[in-house]
Amino acid sequence: MTVREIGEYGLVAHLCERLERTFGIDRRVLVGLGDDAAVVELDGLRLVLTIDTQLENTHFRLRWMPPKDLGWKAVAISLSDLAAMGAKPLAVLFGIGLTGDEPLSFVDDLYEGATALCQATQTLLLGGDTTRSSLGVLISSVAIGVLEGEPWRRQGAQVGDALLVTGYPGEAAAGFWLLEKELQAAIPAPFSEPCLKRFRSPLPRTSAVPLLRSFPIHAAIDLSDGLAIDAWRIAAASKVWLQLEISRLPISDALRSAAQAVQKEPLDLALTGGEDYELLLAVPMGEAEQICQRLWEHGIPAHLIGTVIGTDSQGQVIGLFADGTVQPLKGGFQHF
Amino acid sequence: MTVREIGEYGLVAHLCERLERTFGIDRRVLVGLGDDAAVVELDGLRLVLTIDTQLENTHFRLRWMPPKDLGWKAVAISLSDLAAMGAKPLAVLFGIGLTGDEPLSFVDDLYEGATALCQATQTLLLGGDTTRSSLGVLISSVAIGVLEGEPWRRQGAQVGDALLVTGYPGEAAAGFWLLEKELQAAIPAPFSEPCLKRFRSPLPRTSAVPLLRSFPIHAAIDLSDGLAIDAWRIAAASKVWLQLEISRLPISDALRSAAQAVQKEPLDLALTGGEDYELLLAVPMGEAEQICQRLWEHGIPAHLIGTVIGTDSQGQVIGLFADGTVQPLKGGFQHF
Repeated sequence: MTVREIGEYGLVAHLCERLERTFGIDRRVLVGLGDDAAVVELDGLRLVLTIDTQLENTHFRLRWMPPKDLGWKAVAISLSDLAAMGAKPLAVLFGIGLTGDEPLSFVDDLYEGATALCQATQTLLLGGDTTRSSLGVLISSVAIGVLEGEPWRRQGAQVGDALLVTGYPGEAAAGFWLLEKELQAAIPAPFSEPCLKRFRSPLPRTSAVPLLRSFPIHAAIDLSDGLAIDAWRIAAASKVWLQLEISRLPISDALRSAAQAVQKEPLDLALTGGEDYELLLAVPMGEAEQICQRLWEHGIPAHLIGTVIGTDSQGQVIGLFADGTVQPLKGGFQHF
Repeated sequence: MTVREIGEYGLVAHLCERLERTFGIDRRVLVGLGDDAAVVELDGLRLVLTIDTQLENTHFRLRWMPPKDLGWKAVAISLSDLAAMGAKPLAVLFGIGLTGDEPLSFVDDLYEGATALCQATQTLLLGGDTTRSSLGVLISSVAIGVLEGEPWRRQGAQVGDALLVTGYPGEAAAGFWLLEKELQAAIPAPFSEPCLKRFRSPLPRTSAVPLLRSFPIHAAIDLSDGLAIDAWRIAAASKVWLQLEISRLPISDALRSAAQAVQKEPLDLALTGGEDYELLLAVPMGEAEQICQRLWEHGIPAHLIGTVIGTDSQGQVIGLFADGTVQPLKGGFQHF
C-alpha cells in the first residue's frame, strides 16, 4: 500500500497508533501527534510545539505569492495551530530552502513579512536554517507557545454544544482561485482584497485566545483544510454527530463576489475551501452568545453555525439546509 | 545580488544583522540566529531550539539512503546542534514531505529509525506534519532541548586554548563517496562500515554533554560542513587565529582505506568533508588532557588537534604541517 492509497487521514492514524505503541504513554507528553500541535510539560511549564511546511507548486506559486506574504503566512499557519490549542506564542523558527537564484531581496522580503506578524503578535523571530533546494522554494515554520491551563483539544465536544466559527470560511479559497485563474482584477478591490488577503497573508486568531480562555472551550481546531473536513476532525475525535446549519454559514459579500468571478459556489468554497486559518470551537450552548459578543467586541467576526446533536463512534458531520433537507457533508483538502 | 552570489555565510551574516536591527535586543533571547541553535529563556528555564532540513538530491539520494537511516539522521542532525550548545534533548518534531508514491513501509521505516535514536537518547518523538511534495522527499527536523547553565557558543575561544575534536572527521564524507560512486563493496566491511555508518546514521555526541558540563568549555560547534570551515566559524566568532596541527588529525584506518577506494586524500576529507556531526571544542590547555581522557573512558574518541595562537578581528585558521610549513586552511561545504 502506498501513502496515496492509505490517504492523509489513514497515514496520521497509522502513525499515531505506531508512536503510541513504541513510546507508550510518557506523562510529559500531554498531547502528541494527531492534534493541531504537541504539548509537552517540563518543570510545570506547558510548551506547545508545531511545524508546518509550505512548498512551491504544492502550496504556492512564486508568480502570485510575493515573498513578503510567504514569510507572513509561514508564521501565520504555525501561530494558528497554537491558537487552536489555546496557547500564547513565544517564538518562531524557520527552515528555508532556496535554489540560490533568488535575489537577496527575496530573503529580505520574506523576513520582512515574517517580522511584521511576529511583532504584531509579540512573538520572537529566532531565524533558522537556510539550505539549498534544487526542488524549488520551501519554508518550514516552527512555533513554540506556552499554555496556561488545559490545552483545547479536538476531542471534548459534547451533545448540546454550539459550534462557533470565526471569520468567513471560504474567503481564502476564493482568493486562491482569483490568483490561480488570474482574475484578481475581475472584481472591485473591496471584494477581491479580503479574499486575497485571507489567502496570502491571513491574520491568525492569536488575539482571540486570551479573550476565550475565561470561557469553557470543549473542543477547538483551526480551519486548514476546509470547514467540512475540519468539523469532521472534531466530530471524529469527540465521537459525536455535528450538524451544520447551512443557512447560518457566514458568506461575506467578498466571498460571494469572488466566487462568482471564479465560477464556484460560495457555499462550496465555505464548506470545502481550505487555508482560512479561522477557529472552529465547540462551546456550551448557554455561553455561545456571550462568546460571540466578546469576539465581535474585539473586532473578530464570530458566528454560531451548528450544534452537537448526538454521539457516534466514528464521528459524523451533517448539513441542515434551508429547505429542511439534511445531508452528510464530506470533502476538503487531503494531501494524499 | 542573488543568494548564490552573496553565499551562505554572507546570507547568514546579512540575516543576523537584519534580525538584530528589527527586533533589537530582547533579553529573553540568549542566543539568536548565527549559532548552532537558538536559546530562549522563559520563567528561568533555558530552551534550546534548532531546525534542519534534508532534501532528496541535495542531501541524499533514495537509491542509497534507506528510510530508516533517513529518520535516524534527521534526529541526529538536530540533536548534534543541541549537543554543540551544551544542551540536553527534550523532544523532536518532524515536517515530512512525500510524493505519495512511497509505500507505507517507507514511512514506517523512517519512524523506526527516528524512534531508535530518540529512545537511545531519551528524547520524546512528538511526530509532526506530513505534506505532499511534488519536489521529492524532504524532512525537516526540529529539536528542543534544555540548558542547565550557560550555552556553549562559537565565540569565546581564548588565546592559549586547546582545540579538541571527537571521533574521526572525514569518515562521513568517505562514506558519502563510497555510496555516490557505488564502491561500498570495494573495501572490506570493517573499513567501509564505520564510514557508511557515520554518513547514513551518525551517533550525535549527546552523551558527551553531561561529561563535559563540569569542565570550562570556551567555545563549541558541531562539524556539519567540514573541519576547516567549522573551525573557521569558531575563529570568526571568537576573533582568533586557530592553528590546526595537521599531524595530530586523527585519520582512522577506515577513513584511510575508504579514501583510497574513492581516490581522495584522507587529509582532504578530514579537513573539508562535511556531515560528521562530531564536536569541536576550545578548552583551556590545562584541562585538555583530562577532558580527552574523560571522553575516552565513556567510549568517545577525542583528540587534541590544535591551539588558539592569537587574536584577529576576522578570524583565521592555519594548518601547521609535519614538514614545518604553515598554510591558511579554507574550504568546506557551502550551500550557495
